Amino acid sequence: MNSEKVVIIGGVAAGTKAAAKAMRENPDLDIVVLTKDRHVSYAGCGLPYYIGDVIKEEKELLVKRPKDFRADFGIEVITDIEATKIMPGEKTVLAKDLNTGEEKSYVYDKLVLATGASPFIPPVAGTKLGNVITVRTVNEATAVKKLLVERNVEDAVVVGGGMIGLEVAENLSQRGIWTTVVELAPHILPTHDVDIALNVQNYLAEKGVNVITGTAVKSFEDNGHGYVAAVSTDNGFLKADLVVLSVGVRPNVDLARDCGITLGPTGAVAVNDKMETNIDDIYAVGDCAENVNLITGRTVWYPMGSTANKTGRVAGINMAGAAAEDSMKGVLGTSILKLFSLNIAKTGLSERDARSLGYKVETVLVPAPDRAHYYPGSRQIVTKLIVDRDSHRVLGGQIFGEGVVDKPIDILVTAISFGATVDQLAKLDLSYAPPYSTALSTTAVAANVMMNKLAGKFTGVGPLELKEKMEAGAVLVDVTTDKEYMVRNIPGSVNIPLRRLLERSGELDRKKEIILYCKVGLRSYLALLKLKRLGFEKVSILEGGLAAYPFETE
Amino acid sequence: MNSEKVVIIGGVAAGTKAAAKAMRENPDLDIVVLTKDRHVSYAGCGLPYYIGDVIKEEKELLVKRPKDFRADFGIEVITDIEATKIMPGEKTVLAKDLNTGEEKSYVYDKLVLATGASPFIPPVAGTKLGNVITVRTVNEATAVKKLLVERNVEDAVVVGGGMIGLEVAENLSQRGIWTTVVELAPHILPTHDVDIALNVQNYLAEKGVNVITGTAVKSFEDNGHGYVAAVSTDNGFLKADLVVLSVGVRPNVDLARDCGITLGPTGAVAVNDKMETNIDDIYAVGDCAENVNLITGRTVWYPMGSTANKTGRVAGINMAGAAAEDSMKGVLGTSILKLFSLNIAKTGLSERDARSLGYKVETVLVPAPDRAHYYPGSRQIVTKLIVDRDSHRVLGGQIFGEGVVDKPIDILVTAISFGATVDQLAKLDLSYAPPYSTALSTTAVAANVMMNKLAGKFTGVGPLELKEKMEAGAVLVDVTTDKEYMVRNIPGSVNIPLRRLLERSGELDRKKEIILYCKVGLRSYLALLKLKRLGFEKVSILEGGLAAYPFETE
Repeated sequence: MNSEKVVIIGGVAAGTKAAAKAMRENPDLDIVVLTKDRHVSYAGCGLPYYIGDVIKEEKELLVKRPKDFRADFGIEVITDIEATKIMPGEKTVLAKDLNTGEEKSYVYDKLVLATGASPFIPPVAGTKLGNVITVRTVNEATAVKKLLVERNVEDAVVVGGGMIGLEVAENLSQRGIWTTVVELAPHILPTHDVDIALNVQNYLAEKGVNVITGTAVKSFEDNGHGYVAAVSTDNGFLKADLVVLSVGVRPNVDLARDCGITLGPTGAVAVNDKMETNIDDIYAVGDCAENVNLITGRTVWYPMGSTANKTGRVAGINMAGAAAEDSMKGVLGTSILKLFSLNIAKTGLSERDARSLGYKVETVLVPAPDRAHYYPGSRQIVTKLIVDRDSHRVLGGQIFGEGVVDKPIDILVTAISFGATVDQLAKLDLSYAPPYSTALSTTAVAANVMMNKLAGKFTGVGPLELKEKMEAGAVLVDVTTDKEYMVRNIPGSVNIPLRRLLERSGELDRKKEIILYCKVGLRSYLALLKLKRLGFEKVSILEGGLAAYPFETE
Repeated sequence: MNSEKVVIIGGVAAGTKAAAKAMRENPDLDIVVLTKDRHVSYAGCGLPYYIGDVIKEEKELLVKRPKDFRADFGIEVITDIEATKIMPGEKTVLAKDLNTGEEKSYVYDKLVLATGASPFIPPVAGTKLGNVITVRTVNEATAVKKLLVERNVEDAVVVGGGMIGLEVAENLSQRGIWTTVVELAPHILPTHDVDIALNVQNYLAEKGVNVITGTAVKSFEDNGHGYVAAVSTDNGFLKADLVVLSVGVRPNVDLARDCGITLGPTGAVAVNDKMETNIDDIYAVGDCAENVNLITGRTVWYPMGSTANKTGRVAGINMAGAAAEDSMKGVLGTSILKLFSLNIAKTGLSERDARSLGYKVETVLVPAPDRAHYYPGSRQIVTKLIVDRDSHRVLGGQIFGEGVVDKPIDILVTAISFGATVDQLAKLDLSYAPPYSTALSTTAVAANVMMNKLAGKFTGVGPLELKEKMEAGAVLVDVTTDKEYMVRNIPGSVNIPLRRLLERSGELDRKKEIILYCKVGLRSYLALLKLKRLGFEKVSILEGGLAAYPFETE
């Protein structure tokens, strides 16, 4: 019997996962992985940390070497070879050996496209100068690392304030390099909501990373020797002896398009839930393939390493022709990143996305400690919940803080995957002991605040609306103690400590809108109840209190 | 209008939560909290850490003082008063002032029982000796702490190897006291499965905590001055100048029973999902009330701080007569504890419970790193999944290791709450970046192993069955490298490294059962596939590999 032939184009996460899983499912397969890279199966998400020397050696990033695939799985991995054409009629892939230039052809019974994505290079002058780089492969990262040691890099500019750009900026900054992030959008982390992103910007500024938003790069300037010397922006020049381009990635779809494989609305390869393309026996996995958003059912493109692994596995099982089938129902666009000691995570729809999709959106911004306040290491996190007002269904969440955020975001991921309502979220029997959580978890606290809001027990004013409201005559009242007020308060506020509110309520003008705040929101809620009981009608709370307030304080 | 009167008996977590929530819902209420303790609203779960000096000061444990309740919420808290009788006909509670002996009476419109639970005192001689103590209240913990400083405690015996007993043992051991845990059951952590508990026992032994199981305490011996000197057990004497009794708690239900409130099958107060007892206008919350197990729908009693907070809140909302109602559908018996650097968590049904309830149980034991293996701080955890073979529904999980376990247990909690199948568990779009997770989370890895097992791709042998199988003639094959084998292996095993398995397979007797193991299970799975391809029929894998093997290794 002739073995069935599987050809896989691409050898990072999804391609090698598909190969290994298919072989485990059906050891009779004859599997070849073709990659134009020198490395396979490397940890792409670890590259920023490798640059930052958190990870010292290149080899730590290499999960498996080509020879390991042969020895452990009986899979042939061919590096330095570029697939140039797919001929579905002949079930053949043409490829060029990058060392010899020789053209080769590979016949397949099943073909897997795992061609990944490539950095987008902005169409401005100077992107080919020395020290203007992208960081997508191990080779590129090793080149940067060498450069940091051999050349005296003092000023780096990272173009693009998305997650990878910020991770790179953090790691460069940690190495003592003066680092500026330039972002075209009005705020960094463009997929996050602005109230969250502004808090992250403040944090980065505190840590000495220069963040410039709403700014377009016009060109990169030559130092006279073919290397970059400065970045020209529409807000002036920035000195730079290193420029990292991180303005996003585009799916590598040329091979697919050229052979008649359908691309979807996002520009990536259209696939069904078995990771099959429109052409028989051709699968697409990882960053070159589209995804479905579990909440909206819409086609999206989230090029994430975790999804790459899952899609590779699904294709591996299905193409092995095993009795068991596997499928990929969708994803939530979950992300997480660490910047210095700050953790930032997101899942599901942002407030902005949810509104633009027509949901009746309610949000809360709830600070709370990540573990028992008296247990050493307790740190605050801020949870933003985005909920559909009609169904109470949780649509998304964003969490940031120096405390643990990966746990609560994964609770939200799981809950949202099952269509949870906020009522259900509040009652989860989550694990509690003082080293790990508060008795009522941050998730439950945020859900309870949302329940109160949905029940009309209070109205909130978001930090972004505050200035406008105050200009329209609203009175901002800080209900913390006078000592706390001395330490930090919002300009323009008056201080009436909660415990003196009843006796001093006469100082407040009942005709004006009164906005209350404290540190995290509990005291302002109690103050709101007191004022309402006194007959005040226009009272609201500053969402997230001082803890989530992203503007200047005194 | 007369205010509606609420009387709450008990002032720790559930009672104060019910009071505060009811008042926020309806500020017109007239709420009195009666407690026989001196403290209210304290962090009961923090007491072991207070004893261990991880938490230095008593005041850190006190969330709120009685006067805070008056000032912040307008709630009257009366301490040092013991409720002695409930008269539902008269809607009156009688109580005794513990300082003056005076009898008082309180009329209520709504009554909340939050009487908690008390340590069970084993019926043996000597429990009233000096330095034989329980640790349930701040007063008790402060007394122990004083005693540790003032008397030279060298040898402590903790009677009871449940979670609180072990936490206390850890904290005493951390203070340099030679600590022995005596447990009557065959293993510590009696609610956990034995394969998990034995690993914890090994870990404690490594850390210098003496654990004796299957042993009954017969009496406590007097040192001649009214203090304990030794513990007499059915396995001999243990020197002890401090004994901590931690053999479980019993719900405080005398008041309830005496006035005709129905107790449930567990002995705690029977309540509906609104936390109402059988008598109108009387609620029961926290440790004195029963719960429902979300998976089985059966009545259970899980006295946990996290549940106490939730039930208090539910009662608070319902009795405030607000338009909004709240209910408590059930819990999963989730628990977590930290012992030195080891984290141990559990949710849902144990394997033992699931089997005794008649489920067709499948389990896996899967070690995996908690974050990218190359990221600093990456540590291993072992996940045990318990699944119903017919429906693939996840019934429970237990996770232990020096890595993060609270996150994956809370993912399981959330998934199980929504009736997740293991197939769904494998596809969750959990957050991934190298500092937080591996690309395929430990949850997905464990779920995938379970999927393979359910699909019949391998059979596993649990660590507990291994010895028996070997005695019956099974051959145990270690497929790690010869260097790894030198470092650690299971007595009686032979070493055939995975990469030499094909050439050396002739050494194996095809008629015998062959059990393969490696460190975590991947290589043994690959070896199984190879041997099956060679026609071996009786091949299985040691579940959890060396990482979860709880017996002696060489």
